[in-house]
Amino acid sequence: MNEFFTNVSSNLLLGFPGFRLYALCAVLLAIKMFAVGFYTARTRLRLKVAMNPEDAARFGAELSTTEHPEVERVLRAHRNDLENIPSFLIVGLIAVLLGVPVLGLQICLIAFTAARMVYSVAYIKGMQPWRSLTFGVGALSMFTLSVMIIIRILA
Amino acid sequence: MNEFFTNVSSNLLLGFPGFRLYALCAVLLAIKMFAVGFYTARTRLRLKVAMNPEDAARFGAELSTTEHPEVERVLRAHRNDLENIPSFLIVGLIAVLLGVPVLGLQICLIAFTAARMVYSVAYIKGMQPWRSLTFGVGALSMFTLSVMIIIRILA
Amino acid sequence: MNEFFTNVSSNLLLGFPGFRLYALCAVLLAIKMFAVGFYTARTRLRLKVAMNPEDAARFGAELSTTEHPEVERVLRAHRNDLENIPSFLIVGLIAVLLGVPVLGLQICLIAFTAARMVYSVAYIKGMQPWRSLTFGVGALSMFTLSVMIIIRILA
Repeated sequence: MNEFFTNVSSNLLLGFPGFRLYALCAVLLAIKMFAVGFYTARTRLRLKVAMNPEDAARFGAELSTTEHPEVERVLRAHRNDLENIPSFLIVGLIAVLLGVPVLGLQICLIAFTAARMVYSVAYIKGMQPWRSLTFGVGALSMFTLSVMIIIRILA
Repeated sequence: MNEFFTNVSSNLLLGFPGFRLYALCAVLLAIKMFAVGFYTARTRLRLKVAMNPEDAARFGAELSTTEHPEVERVLRAHRNDLENIPSFLIVGLIAVLLGVPVLGLQICLIAFTAARMVYSVAYIKGMQPWRSLTFGVGALSMFTLSVMIIIRILA
Repeated sequence: MNEFFTNVSSNLLLGFPGFRLYALCAVLLAIKMFAVGFYTARTRLRLKVAMNPEDAARFGAELSTTEHPEVERVLRAHRNDLENIPSFLIVGLIAVLLGVPVLGLQICLIAFTAARMVYSVAYIKGMQPWRSLTFGVGALSMFTLSVMIIIRILA
């Protein structure tokens, strides 16, 4: 029995409509979030500020008790990712596994992924209304998937 | 072969005991987290404070380098969500997919979801011992699911 | 049909290579993240500092508007977990469900889990280069899984 499952399992999920696209979007979003974290470190290094004594000593940076405003901005952009991306990815996976209508699923996945990429740039560069607009597109994608899930589990 | 999987896939997961309830709880928790974020924005707007110059200009708010105490409180409530909800949802999905005992799974899902909803209100309104109590119920649900998962993978 | 799925479902995922290990790592990481949060509360209690008036009153602690540097350090360690662990667990689940090469998957899961455990201790104790090293191992594991996923969905 386990033999059977091992054999089918490697193809099972690829057969779910939208799973390939979901996997691609999840990987892109995870890398994007990582990039924002990397940018925080790079900004601290450029400004020669550090929050930990061991980092100040290592990079010849100034030890600070409060974050530099430029670092704060990147941290806020990153935090907004943390508030939105993991929960979207969980909701998205549920939508894939439940088999919600494929076209709607694909639109939500692509819209969310593209919007959150632009969002990061817009937040860090202080570009409005782009930041609010892309945030809104991301939120709308999440709500649309949620509604499709509710309809599917009640059907 | 792929044809077969596409046909079964849309019903496969609905057949997992507890998956419907899990999906519902995940959607409710994602929307609840979003609502806390929305409440942060609303609180900033009400207090006429902004952290970004572009927001200060847009909403006629005062630019601040530190968050207002009332906003800080909502941010802490939200951060506690970030610390608890995504990891619970991942652990919960694993529990569903592994087929842990259904009754235990259902109790944990409902208890966690209800507790975290009350938690947000209790934190924002400063209502103790409700904040600690609901935090504890959430943590207990997460640990119970973890133990059920460990038993299942070792069995 | 649903009967069939209910019967197979409880064994289906255990047949996916690496799913047992993934489940174990996810549970360990969720508990570890929780432990860091617990350590934050314990540090506040030891230093007799509180951010909320209701906590200050309850624990006889001093109400503060800014976090104590020692608490800040634990919060930064925890935040780094939030930035890395949920997205890794989602990427890891996708890798399991897609059936990426098992050996690579197992190495990434074990390396990430071990590295992030050491990371927390290294951050809280200010131990360098261990903090940077374990962060790097975690990031490398996440990128390796991402590449394996991309290869799998394009194949």
